[in-house]
Amino acid sequence: MSDIDPDFDTAFAAEFDRLLTWRRDVRRFRPDPLPPGAIAELVARAKLAPSVGNSQPWRFVHVREPARRQEVRAEFERCNKAALAGYDGERAKAYAELKLAGFDIAPEQLAVFCDDGEAKGHGLGRATMPETLRHSVVCAVHTLWLAARVRGIGVGWVSIVEPDEVARILDVPLPWSLVAYLCVGYPERADDVPELERAGWQARDTDASYFIER
Amino acid sequence: MSDIDPDFDTAFAAEFDRLLTWRRDVRRFRPDPLPPGAIAELVARAKLAPSVGNSQPWRFVHVREPARRQEVRAEFERCNKAALAGYDGERAKAYAELKLAGFDIAPEQLAVFCDDGEAKGHGLGRATMPETLRHSVVCAVHTLWLAARVRGIGVGWVSIVEPDEVARILDVPLPWSLVAYLCVGYPERADDVPELERAGWQARDTDASYFIER
Repeated sequence: MSDIDPDFDTAFAAEFDRLLTWRRDVRRFRPDPLPPGAIAELVARAKLAPSVGNSQPWRFVHVREPARRQEVRAEFERCNKAALAGYDGERAKAYAELKLAGFDIAPEQLAVFCDDGEAKGHGLGRATMPETLRHSVVCAVHTLWLAARVRGIGVGWVSIVEPDEVARILDVPLPWSLVAYLCVGYPERADDVPELERAGWQARDTDASYFIER
Repeated sequence: MSDIDPDFDTAFAAEFDRLLTWRRDVRRFRPDPLPPGAIAELVARAKLAPSVGNSQPWRFVHVREPARRQEVRAEFERCNKAALAGYDGERAKAYAELKLAGFDIAPEQLAVFCDDGEAKGHGLGRATMPETLRHSVVCAVHTLWLAARVRGIGVGWVSIVEPDEVARILDVPLPWSLVAYLCVGYPERADDVPELERAGWQARDTDASYFIER
Protein backbone atom coordinates (compact mmCIF):
# COMPACT_ATOMS: atom_id res chain seq x y z
CA MET A 1 0.00 0.00 0.00
CA SER A 2 1.20 3.46 -0.87
CA ASP A 3 0.66 6.75 0.94
CA ILE A 4 -0.10 8.60 -2.29
CA ASP A 5 -3.45 10.35 -2.23
CA PRO A 6 -5.09 8.89 -5.29
CA ASP A 7 -8.05 11.21 -5.59
CA PHE A 8 -8.91 12.69 -8.94
CA ASP A 9 -9.91 16.22 -9.86
CA THR A 10 -12.94 17.55 -11.68
CA ALA A 11 -10.95 18.10 -14.88
CA PHE A 12 -10.13 14.39 -14.92
CA ALA A 13 -13.76 13.51 -14.22
CA ALA A 14 -14.82 15.57 -17.25
CA GLU A 15 -12.19 13.92 -19.45
CA PHE A 16 -13.25 10.49 -18.20
CA ASP A 17 -16.85 11.26 -19.22
CA ARG A 18 -15.54 12.26 -22.65
CA LEU A 19 -13.70 8.93 -22.85
CA LEU A 20 -16.92 7.01 -22.17
CA THR A 21 -18.78 9.17 -24.68
CA TRP A 22 -16.25 8.70 -27.50
CA ARG A 23 -15.49 5.00 -27.01
CA ARG A 24 -16.91 3.13 -29.97
CA ASP A 25 -17.13 -0.39 -31.30
CA VAL A 26 -14.95 0.18 -34.33
CA ARG A 27 -15.36 -1.75 -37.59
CA ARG A 28 -13.72 0.72 -40.00
CA PHE A 29 -9.98 0.97 -39.48
CA ARG A 30 -7.02 2.67 -41.09
CA PRO A 31 -4.31 0.18 -42.08
CA ASP A 32 -1.52 2.06 -40.25
CA PRO A 33 0.39 -0.20 -37.86
CA LEU A 34 0.28 0.40 -34.12
CA PRO A 35 3.52 1.37 -32.36
CA PRO A 36 5.70 -1.62 -31.37
CA GLY A 37 4.57 -3.08 -28.06
CA ALA A 38 1.16 -1.40 -28.16
CA ILE A 39 -0.76 -4.66 -27.76
CA ALA A 40 1.38 -5.74 -24.81
CA GLU A 41 0.84 -2.32 -23.24
CA LEU A 42 -2.93 -2.68 -23.58
CA VAL A 43 -2.85 -6.22 -22.17
CA ALA A 44 -0.91 -4.93 -19.15
CA ARG A 45 -3.70 -2.44 -18.47
CA ALA A 46 -6.37 -5.13 -18.95
CA LYS A 47 -4.79 -7.13 -16.13
CA LEU A 48 -5.67 -4.31 -13.72
CA ALA A 49 -9.34 -5.25 -14.13
CA PRO A 50 -11.34 -6.63 -11.20
CA SER A 51 -11.75 -10.41 -10.98
CA VAL A 52 -13.80 -12.63 -8.71
CA GLY A 53 -11.68 -13.77 -5.77
CA ASN A 54 -8.72 -12.13 -7.54
CA SER A 55 -8.80 -15.17 -9.84
CA GLN A 56 -7.39 -13.34 -12.91
CA PRO A 57 -8.75 -15.97 -15.33
CA TRP A 58 -7.99 -13.91 -18.48
CA ARG A 59 -5.83 -15.36 -21.25
CA PHE A 60 -4.70 -13.27 -24.23
CA VAL A 61 -3.83 -14.55 -27.68
CA HIS A 62 -2.19 -12.10 -30.08
CA VAL A 63 -3.25 -13.48 -33.46
CA ARG A 64 -0.57 -12.74 -36.04
CA GLU A 65 -0.26 -15.71 -38.42
CA PRO A 66 -2.02 -14.92 -41.72
CA ALA A 67 -3.36 -18.47 -42.11
CA ARG A 68 -5.06 -18.42 -38.71
CA ARG A 69 -6.42 -14.93 -39.34
CA GLN A 70 -7.90 -16.14 -42.61
CA GLU A 71 -9.58 -19.07 -40.86
CA VAL A 72 -11.10 -16.83 -38.20
CA ARG A 73 -12.35 -14.47 -40.86
CA ALA A 74 -13.91 -17.37 -42.79
CA GLU A 75 -15.58 -18.50 -39.54
CA PHE A 76 -17.03 -15.00 -39.12
CA GLU A 77 -18.29 -14.96 -42.71
CA ARG A 78 -19.94 -18.35 -42.20
CA CYS A 79 -21.68 -17.29 -38.98
CA ASN A 80 -22.65 -13.90 -40.36
CA LYS A 81 -24.33 -15.56 -43.35
CA ALA A 82 -26.24 -17.84 -40.96
CA ALA A 83 -27.25 -14.81 -38.86
CA LEU A 84 -28.49 -12.98 -41.96
CA ALA A 85 -30.70 -15.98 -42.79
CA GLY A 86 -32.46 -15.38 -39.45
CA TYR A 87 -33.88 -12.02 -40.59
CA ASP A 88 -36.69 -11.27 -43.05
CA GLY A 89 -37.68 -8.42 -45.36
CA GLU A 90 -36.47 -4.92 -44.54
CA ARG A 91 -34.57 -6.11 -41.43
CA ALA A 92 -32.64 -8.63 -43.52
CA LYS A 93 -31.82 -5.94 -46.06
CA ALA A 94 -30.60 -3.64 -43.28
CA TYR A 95 -28.52 -6.42 -41.70
CA ALA A 96 -26.83 -7.22 -45.00
CA GLU A 97 -25.74 -3.60 -45.30
CA LEU A 98 -24.12 -3.43 -41.87
CA LYS A 99 -20.37 -3.65 -41.52
CA LEU A 100 -19.88 -5.84 -38.45
CA ALA A 101 -16.14 -6.52 -38.30
CA GLY A 102 -12.86 -4.94 -39.33
CA PHE A 103 -10.93 -8.09 -40.27
CA ASP A 104 -9.92 -6.74 -43.65
CA ILE A 105 -8.01 -3.65 -42.52
CA ALA A 106 -7.33 -3.71 -38.75
CA PRO A 107 -3.58 -4.24 -38.25
CA GLU A 108 -3.97 -6.26 -35.03
CA GLN A 109 -6.21 -9.05 -33.78
CA LEU A 110 -6.49 -10.24 -30.22
CA ALA A 111 -8.52 -13.15 -28.86
CA VAL A 112 -9.41 -13.10 -25.17
CA PHE A 113 -10.24 -16.33 -23.38
CA CYS A 114 -11.39 -17.42 -19.93
CA ASP A 115 -9.51 -20.27 -18.29
CA ASP A 116 -12.51 -22.22 -17.02
CA GLY A 117 -10.15 -24.34 -14.92
CA GLU A 118 -8.63 -21.36 -13.12
CA ALA A 119 -7.70 -22.32 -9.55
CA LYS A 120 -6.54 -18.88 -8.44
CA GLY A 121 -8.97 -17.27 -6.03
CA HIS A 122 -9.79 -20.68 -4.56
CA GLY A 123 -13.37 -20.49 -5.82
CA LEU A 124 -14.17 -17.42 -3.70
CA GLY A 125 -17.38 -15.73 -4.87
CA ARG A 126 -18.07 -18.39 -7.49
CA ALA A 127 -20.20 -20.93 -5.60
CA THR A 128 -23.52 -19.14 -6.15
CA MET A 129 -22.58 -17.25 -9.34
CA PRO A 130 -19.99 -19.27 -11.29
CA GLU A 131 -20.48 -16.97 -14.29
CA THR A 132 -18.46 -14.33 -12.41
CA LEU A 133 -15.30 -16.04 -13.69
CA ARG A 134 -16.20 -15.14 -17.28
CA HIS A 135 -17.49 -11.78 -16.13
CA SER A 136 -13.99 -11.04 -14.81
CA VAL A 137 -12.64 -11.55 -18.33
CA VAL A 138 -15.31 -9.21 -19.69
CA CYS A 139 -14.05 -6.55 -17.25
CA ALA A 140 -10.54 -7.09 -18.63
CA VAL A 141 -11.77 -6.68 -22.21
CA HIS A 142 -13.61 -3.50 -21.29
CA THR A 143 -10.53 -2.16 -19.50
CA LEU A 144 -8.39 -2.85 -22.58
CA TRP A 145 -11.00 -1.17 -24.75
CA LEU A 146 -10.94 2.04 -22.70
CA ALA A 147 -7.13 2.03 -22.41
CA ALA A 148 -6.97 1.72 -26.21
CA ARG A 149 -9.37 4.62 -26.72
CA VAL A 150 -7.24 6.78 -24.40
CA ARG A 151 -4.42 6.22 -26.92
CA GLY A 152 -6.62 6.94 -29.96
CA ILE A 153 -6.75 3.22 -30.78
CA GLY A 154 -10.05 1.63 -31.78
CA VAL A 155 -11.34 -1.79 -30.75
CA GLY A 156 -14.10 -3.83 -32.38
CA TRP A 157 -15.58 -6.79 -30.46
CA VAL A 158 -16.59 -9.61 -32.80
CA SER A 159 -19.08 -12.15 -31.36
CA ILE A 160 -20.35 -13.56 -34.66
CA VAL A 161 -18.17 -16.69 -34.45
CA GLU A 162 -18.57 -20.09 -32.80
CA PRO A 163 -16.33 -19.89 -29.70
CA ASP A 164 -15.22 -23.52 -29.92
CA GLU A 165 -14.27 -23.08 -33.55
CA VAL A 166 -12.03 -20.09 -32.73
CA ALA A 167 -10.42 -22.05 -29.88
CA ARG A 168 -9.68 -24.84 -32.37
CA ILE A 169 -8.26 -22.47 -35.00
CA LEU A 170 -5.97 -20.84 -32.42
CA ASP A 171 -5.00 -24.16 -30.83
CA VAL A 172 -5.33 -22.99 -27.25
CA PRO A 173 -5.36 -25.21 -24.13
CA LEU A 174 -8.61 -27.10 -23.62
CA PRO A 175 -9.99 -25.25 -20.59
CA TRP A 176 -9.77 -21.88 -22.36
CA SER A 177 -13.12 -20.66 -23.72
CA LEU A 178 -13.48 -17.63 -25.98
CA VAL A 179 -14.94 -14.47 -24.45
CA ALA A 180 -14.06 -11.90 -27.13
CA TYR A 181 -12.35 -11.67 -30.49
CA LEU A 182 -11.03 -8.15 -31.03
CA CYS A 183 -9.93 -6.23 -34.09
CA VAL A 184 -7.58 -3.43 -33.05
CA GLY A 185 -6.18 -0.42 -34.91
CA TYR A 186 -6.60 3.28 -35.58
CA PRO A 187 -10.20 4.08 -36.51
CA GLU A 188 -11.13 5.79 -39.76
CA ARG A 189 -12.76 8.48 -37.68
CA ALA A 190 -13.81 9.37 -34.16
CA ASP A 191 -17.48 9.40 -33.29
CA ASP A 192 -19.72 9.97 -30.29
CA VAL A 193 -22.67 8.07 -31.78
CA PRO A 194 -22.69 4.24 -32.06
CA GLU A 195 -22.37 2.99 -35.64
CA LEU A 196 -25.53 0.86 -35.22
CA GLU A 197 -27.43 4.03 -34.28
CA ARG A 198 -26.09 5.95 -37.27
CA ALA A 199 -27.02 3.03 -39.52
CA GLY A 200 -30.61 3.09 -38.21
CA TRP A 201 -30.36 -0.41 -36.70
CA GLN A 202 -30.80 0.46 -33.01
CA ALA A 203 -30.85 3.86 -31.33
CA ARG A 204 -29.95 4.59 -27.74
CA ASP A 205 -32.73 4.24 -25.25
CA THR A 206 -34.12 6.78 -22.79
CA ASP A 207 -36.64 4.58 -20.94
CA ALA A 208 -36.60 5.90 -17.37
CA SER A 209 -38.29 2.73 -16.06
CA TYR A 210 -34.96 0.92 -16.32
CA PHE A 211 -33.76 2.68 -13.18
CA ILE A 212 -36.20 1.89 -10.37
CA GLU A 213 -36.29 2.02 -6.57
CA ARG A 214 -37.13 -0.70 -4.12
CA MET B 1 -21.67 13.09 -34.98
CA SER B 2 -19.63 16.00 -33.77
CA ASP B 3 -16.57 17.63 -35.28
CA ILE B 4 -14.79 17.85 -31.93
CA ASP B 5 -11.42 16.17 -31.95
CA PRO B 6 -11.78 13.76 -29.02
CA ASP B 7 -8.21 12.69 -28.61
CA PHE B 8 -6.69 12.54 -25.17
CA ASP B 9 -3.31 13.75 -23.96
CA THR B 10 -0.52 11.89 -22.17
CA ALA B 11 -1.42 13.51 -18.84
CA PHE B 12 -4.89 12.00 -19.11
CA ALA B 13 -3.40 8.63 -20.07
CA ALA B 14 -1.27 8.69 -16.92
CA GLU B 15 -4.26 9.63 -14.76
CA PHE B 16 -6.32 6.87 -16.38
CA ASP B 17 -3.62 4.33 -15.47
CA ARG B 18 -3.75 5.65 -11.92
CA LEU B 19 -7.54 5.15 -11.93
CA LEU B 20 -7.14 1.50 -12.96
CA THR B 21 -4.42 1.02 -10.34
CA TRP B 22 -6.43 2.50 -7.46
CA ARG B 23 -9.83 0.99 -8.27
CA ARG B 24 -10.65 -1.54 -5.57
CA ASP B 25 -13.42 -3.91 -4.61
CA VAL B 26 -14.41 -2.12 -1.42
CA ARG B 27 -15.87 -3.88 1.61
CA ARG B 28 -14.98 -1.35 4.31
CA PHE B 29 -16.98 1.85 4.01
CA ARG B 30 -17.45 5.06 5.91
CA PRO B 31 -21.11 5.69 6.78
CA ASP B 32 -21.15 9.21 5.29
CA PRO B 33 -23.99 9.66 2.79
CA LEU B 34 -23.25 10.28 -0.89
CA PRO B 35 -24.30 13.63 -2.38
CA PRO B 36 -27.95 13.71 -3.53
CA GLY B 37 -28.29 12.29 -7.03
CA ALA B 38 -24.93 10.51 -6.94
CA ILE B 39 -26.39 7.09 -7.74
CA ALA B 40 -28.39 8.47 -10.67
CA GLU B 41 -25.24 10.19 -11.93
CA LEU B 42 -23.31 6.91 -11.82
CA VAL B 43 -26.14 5.03 -13.56
CA ALA B 44 -26.11 7.66 -16.34
CA ARG B 45 -22.40 6.93 -16.90
CA ALA B 46 -23.01 3.16 -16.81
CA LYS B 47 -25.42 3.54 -19.73
CA LEU B 48 -22.51 4.71 -21.90
CA ALA B 49 -21.11 1.17 -21.77
CA PRO B 50 -20.89 -0.95 -24.91
CA SER B 51 -23.66 -3.48 -25.52
CA VAL B 52 -24.11 -6.21 -28.10
CA GLY B 53 -26.14 -4.90 -31.04
CA ASN B 54 -26.65 -1.71 -28.96
CA SER B 55 -29.18 -3.79 -26.97
CA GLN B 56 -28.70 -1.90 -23.68
CA PRO B 57 -30.13 -4.76 -21.59
CA TRP B 58 -29.08 -3.24 -18.23
CA ARG B 59 -31.66 -2.62 -15.50
CA PHE B 60 -30.79 -0.79 -12.29
CA VAL B 61 -32.52 -1.17 -8.93
CA HIS B 62 -31.65 1.36 -6.23
CA VAL B 63 -32.28 -0.63 -3.05
CA ARG B 64 -33.43 1.71 -0.29
CA GLU B 65 -36.10 -0.04 1.81
CA PRO B 66 -34.58 -1.30 5.07
CA ALA B 67 -36.67 -4.50 5.06
CA ARG B 68 -35.44 -5.51 1.59
CA ARG B 69 -31.85 -4.61 2.50
CA GLN B 70 -32.12 -6.81 5.55
CA GLU B 71 -33.41 -9.72 3.45
CA VAL B 72 -30.55 -9.36 0.95
CA ARG B 73 -28.05 -9.26 3.77
CA ALA B 74 -29.54 -12.40 5.31
CA GLU B 75 -29.31 -14.08 1.89
CA PHE B 76 -25.61 -13.15 1.74
CA GLU B 77 -25.02 -14.50 5.26
CA ARG B 78 -26.74 -17.76 4.34
CA CYS B 79 -24.70 -18.22 1.13
CA ASN B 80 -21.47 -17.15 2.80
CA LYS B 81 -21.96 -19.76 5.51
CA ALA B 82 -22.53 -22.40 2.84
CA ALA B 83 -19.39 -21.24 0.99
CA LEU B 84 -17.33 -21.48 4.19
CA ALA B 85 -18.48 -25.09 4.60
CA GLY B 86 -16.80 -25.82 1.27
CA TYR B 87 -13.31 -25.10 2.66
CA ASP B 88 -11.16 -27.17 5.02
CA GLY B 89 -8.41 -26.51 7.55
CA GLU B 90 -6.27 -23.39 7.14
CA ARG B 91 -8.18 -22.29 4.04
CA ALA B 92 -11.47 -22.40 5.96
CA LYS B 93 -9.91 -20.40 8.78
CA ALA B 94 -8.64 -17.82 6.30
CA TYR B 95 -12.04 -17.63 4.57
CA ALA B 96 -13.84 -17.07 7.87
CA GLU B 97 -11.60 -14.09 8.58
CA LEU B 98 -12.25 -12.34 5.26
CA LYS B 99 -14.63 -9.44 5.07
CA LEU B 100 -16.54 -10.01 1.83
CA ALA B 101 -19.29 -7.40 1.80
CA GLY B 102 -20.02 -3.92 3.13
CA PHE B 103 -23.73 -4.32 3.86
CA ASP B 104 -23.43 -3.04 7.39
CA ILE B 105 -22.02 0.42 6.67
CA ALA B 106 -22.26 1.30 2.95
CA PRO B 107 -24.89 4.05 2.59
CA GLU B 108 -26.13 2.87 -0.82
CA GLN B 109 -26.98 -0.46 -2.45
CA LEU B 110 -27.61 -1.03 -6.13
CA ALA B 111 -28.66 -4.24 -7.86
CA VAL B 112 -27.92 -4.54 -11.56
CA PHE B 113 -29.93 -6.95 -13.70
CA CYS B 114 -29.95 -8.17 -17.28
CA ASP B 115 -33.28 -8.17 -19.11
CA ASP B 116 -33.00 -11.59 -20.72
CA GLY B 117 -36.00 -10.75 -22.89
CA GLU B 118 -34.41 -7.60 -24.30
CA ALA B 119 -35.56 -7.06 -27.90
CA LYS B 120 -33.42 -4.02 -28.63
CA GLY B 121 -30.56 -4.79 -30.98
CA HIS B 122 -32.76 -7.30 -32.82
CA GLY B 123 -30.55 -10.18 -31.73
CA LEU B 124 -27.50 -8.83 -33.56
CA GLY B 125 -24.29 -10.53 -32.39
CA ARG B 126 -26.17 -12.91 -30.08
CA ALA B 127 -26.84 -15.92 -32.31
CA THR B 128 -23.47 -17.59 -31.74
CA MET B 129 -22.66 -16.04 -28.35
CA PRO B 130 -25.92 -15.34 -26.46
CA GLU B 131 -23.92 -14.66 -23.29
CA THR B 132 -22.90 -11.31 -24.83
CA LEU B 133 -26.22 -9.91 -23.56
CA ARG B 134 -25.15 -10.46 -19.93
CA HIS B 135 -21.62 -9.40 -20.82
CA SER B 136 -23.03 -6.03 -21.88
CA VAL B 137 -24.43 -5.59 -18.38
CA VAL B 138 -21.02 -6.49 -16.93
CA CYS B 139 -19.50 -3.68 -19.02
CA ALA B 140 -22.10 -1.31 -17.54
CA VAL B 141 -21.22 -2.41 -14.00
CA HIS B 142 -17.52 -1.92 -14.68
CA THR B 143 -18.18 1.51 -16.19
CA LEU B 144 -20.16 2.52 -13.09
CA TRP B 145 -17.35 1.21 -10.88
CA LEU B 146 -14.71 3.33 -12.62
CA ALA B 147 -16.97 6.42 -12.72
CA ALA B 148 -17.50 6.00 -8.97
CA ARG B 149 -13.76 5.73 -8.28
CA VAL B 150 -13.18 8.93 -10.28
CA ARG B 151 -15.44 10.62 -7.71
CA GLY B 152 -13.71 8.99 -4.73
CA ILE B 153 -16.66 6.61 -4.28
CA GLY B 154 -16.02 2.93 -3.60
CA VAL B 155 -17.96 -0.03 -5.01
CA GLY B 156 -18.03 -3.59 -3.73
CA TRP B 157 -19.45 -6.33 -6.00
CA VAL B 158 -21.23 -9.04 -4.00
CA SER B 159 -21.72 -12.37 -5.79
CA ILE B 160 -22.27 -14.54 -2.71
CA VAL B 161 -26.07 -14.61 -3.12
CA GLU B 162 -28.47 -16.76 -5.11
CA PRO B 163 -29.49 -14.55 -8.05
CA ASP B 164 -33.09 -15.80 -8.15
CA GLU B 165 -33.47 -15.13 -4.45
CA VAL B 166 -32.34 -11.51 -4.86
CA ALA B 167 -34.74 -11.08 -7.81
CA ARG B 168 -37.55 -12.36 -5.58
CA ILE B 169 -36.61 -10.09 -2.65
CA LEU B 170 -36.52 -7.04 -4.93
CA ASP B 171 -39.69 -8.06 -6.79
CA VAL B 172 -38.37 -7.28 -10.27
CA PRO B 173 -39.99 -8.29 -13.58
CA LEU B 174 -39.57 -11.97 -14.44
CA PRO B 175 -37.10 -11.70 -17.34
CA TRP B 176 -34.61 -9.74 -15.23
CA SER B 177 -31.72 -11.83 -13.91
CA LEU B 178 -29.19 -10.56 -11.40
CA VAL B 179 -25.70 -9.73 -12.68
CA ALA B 180 -24.30 -7.78 -9.73
CA TYR B 181 -25.28 -6.61 -6.26
CA LEU B 182 -23.27 -3.52 -5.34
CA CYS B 183 -22.52 -1.81 -2.04
CA VAL B 184 -21.62 1.83 -2.69
CA GLY B 185 -20.12 4.53 -0.49
CA TYR B 186 -16.94 6.30 0.53
CA PRO B 187 -14.19 3.78 1.35
CA GLU B 188 -12.43 3.73 4.70
CA ARG B 189 -9.19 4.20 2.82
CA ALA B 190 -7.66 4.21 -0.65
CA ASP B 191 -5.41 1.37 -1.70
CA ASP B 192 -3.49 0.18 -4.75
CA VAL B 193 -3.35 -3.45 -3.59
CA PRO B 194 -6.44 -5.73 -3.69
CA GLU B 195 -7.82 -6.56 -0.24
CA LEU B 196 -7.63 -10.30 -1.02
CA GLU B 197 -3.91 -9.88 -1.74
CA ARG B 198 -3.29 -7.97 1.50
CA ALA B 199 -5.21 -10.66 3.39
CA GLY B 200 -2.97 -13.37 1.92
CA TRP B 201 -5.86 -15.07 0.10
CA GLN B 202 -4.72 -14.57 -3.50
CA ALA B 203 -1.87 -12.44 -4.85
CA ARG B 204 -1.64 -10.93 -8.31
CA ASP B 205 -0.16 -13.13 -10.95
CA THR B 206 2.81 -12.51 -13.23
CA ASP B 207 2.64 -15.65 -15.39
CA ALA B 208 3.85 -14.50 -18.83
CA SER B 209 2.39 -17.59 -20.50
CA TYR B 210 -1.05 -16.01 -20.24
CA PHE B 211 -0.20 -13.70 -23.16
CA ILE B 212 0.74 -15.85 -26.14
CA GLU B 213 1.10 -15.47 -29.88
CA ARG B 214 -0.46 -17.52 -32.64
